[in-house]
Amino acid sequence: MSSKLQNFVKFGRTIICVGRNYRAHASELGNPIPSEPFVFLKPVSSYITQGQDIKLPLGASEIHHEVELGVVIGSRCSSVTESNIPDHIGGYFLALDMTDRNRQKSAQTKGLPWTVAKGFDTACPVSDFVPKDRIPDPQNVDLWLKVNGNLRQSGNTKLMIFPVKKLISWISERITLEEGDVILTGTPEGVGPVRSGDIIECGLGDITKMKYSIK
Amino acid sequence: MSSKLQNFVKFGRTIICVGRNYRAHASELGNPIPSEPFVFLKPVSSYITQGQDIKLPLGASEIHHEVELGVVIGSRCSSVTESNIPDHIGGYFLALDMTDRNRQKSAQTKGLPWTVAKGFDTACPVSDFVPKDRIPDPQNVDLWLKVNGNLRQSGNTKLMIFPVKKLISWISERITLEEGDVILTGTPEGVGPVRSGDIIECGLGDITKMKYSIK
Ligand SMILES: [Mg+2]
Ligand SMILES: [Mg+2]
Ligand SMILES: [Mg+2]
Repeated sequence: MSSKLQNFVKFGRTIICVGRNYRAHASELGNPIPSEPFVFLKPVSSYITQGQDIKLPLGASEIHHEVELGVVIGSRCSSVTESNIPDHIGGYFLALDMTDRNRQKSAQTKGLPWTVAKGFDTACPVSDFVPKDRIPDPQNVDLWLKVNGNLRQSGNTKLMIFPVKKLISWISERITLEEGDVILTGTPEGVGPVRSGDIIECGLGDITKMKYSIK
Repeated sequence: MSSKLQNFVKFGRTIICVGRNYRAHASELGNPIPSEPFVFLKPVSSYITQGQDIKLPLGASEIHHEVELGVVIGSRCSSVTESNIPDHIGGYFLALDMTDRNRQKSAQTKGLPWTVAKGFDTACPVSDFVPKDRIPDPQNVDLWLKVNGNLRQSGNTKLMIFPVKKLISWISERITLEEGDVILTGTPEGVGPVRSGDIIECGLGDITKMKYSIK
C-alpha cells in the first residue's frame, strides 16, 4: 500500500483542512475556540513538492505560514467510527497551509468562502510521504517552523482540540474520503507573514523536515 | 479528447463553483450583486451520476436545488486570457449545486467556510458529458428545473453577471485548472427546498436533461 501512497500528491483528489484546531492559534487571531470541527478545501493544484517555490499570489498583501501535520487516507472512509480510524490511515506528511490572511479576513467579514485565500497555486507545500509506522502516536509529534533561521512556530500535536481520529470520523460522516486524499490537521500558534526571498524550514520532530523559498 | 472527457467524474480532481452569478438569484437570497467573481470548491466525492440518489445529509433541515451549466476543462489553464478560453473548454454538462441552506447561512454569519454546506456526499449530481460542439454559444442556453413536475427554475445563461470566458480566465489567474476539472457557473433564480421522496428533473434547453430522486 505504501508504495502507491507515496504518490498521494499525484493521484489523491481531495485536500481537506481543519481550521482552529489549536486553542492558542484560534486565540492569536482573535477567533473563538470551536465546539465542533470545521473544514475547508484546497484544490490539488495548490500542492507543491520540494524543489518548487511558494509564489505570492496575485494582489497578495499578507501571506502567512501555518505548519501542520498531514494525514494520508489509506482506504475509503464513509461514516467510520473513531475506533476504526487507525486502520484507514495510510501515512503522514508535513504540510504548510499557506494563507492569504487579508483575503481570508475579507471573506470572513463578507460571509464569503475562503477558497482563493487558501487555495491559490502553491498554497500547499508538502514533504515526502511518512509511512504510518514512523508515527505510532499522531497525538504526540512536535511541529516546528523557522523563517530565515528564526523559530516562529513550535508546538505538539497533543495540543489539538480535536484529535486525528475524531477529525477523520467527523469528516467521514459528511464527506467520503478515498485512498490518497489528505487531511491537514490545523496549526499551532505563531503564524505570521512571509515575504519574497524568505526561506521557510519546518519539521515533524526529527521524523521529517522540508525547506521552501518564497519567490 | 472527448472520449476521455466523457469520464470527467472519474478522473477530474477539482470542482469549482461560482456564487451569485445571476442578479435575480443573488437578490432572492438577500445578497449583494458581486463586483468580482467568487468561488468555492466541492470535493469530487460529492459527484453522483444518474441512477444514484441525492441523500439528505446528517442534520440537514433545508436542502436547496440550484441548477447550473457545468463546463469541463479540456486542457491546462494557468493565467489564460479570455480570448483564449474557448480553446480550453472541453465540453459541458448539466449540474445541480445541492446546498444545505441553513448550514450555509450559519457559516456566512460566523465567517466560516461553506464546505460542508456545499460539499456533502451527493451534493453534485451531474448529467452525461455534452460535447462542446453541441453548445456553440454558452451564453445562450436555457436552464430549467422542476420538482415533482412543477417548474421552479427557468433562466438563460445570457443572464450571467460574469460570462464563462471571464470566469475561467479569472479562476486560472489564481487556481490552475487541469483537463477534467469542472466549473459550475452559478444558478438563476427560483432556488428552493426539496424533501425526501421529491423528484428533480432539469435540463439545458433541449440539449440534455436529467432526473434525480431525493432519498
Ligand atoms: Mg491551517
Ligand atoms: Mg477539491
Ligand atoms: Mg450554485
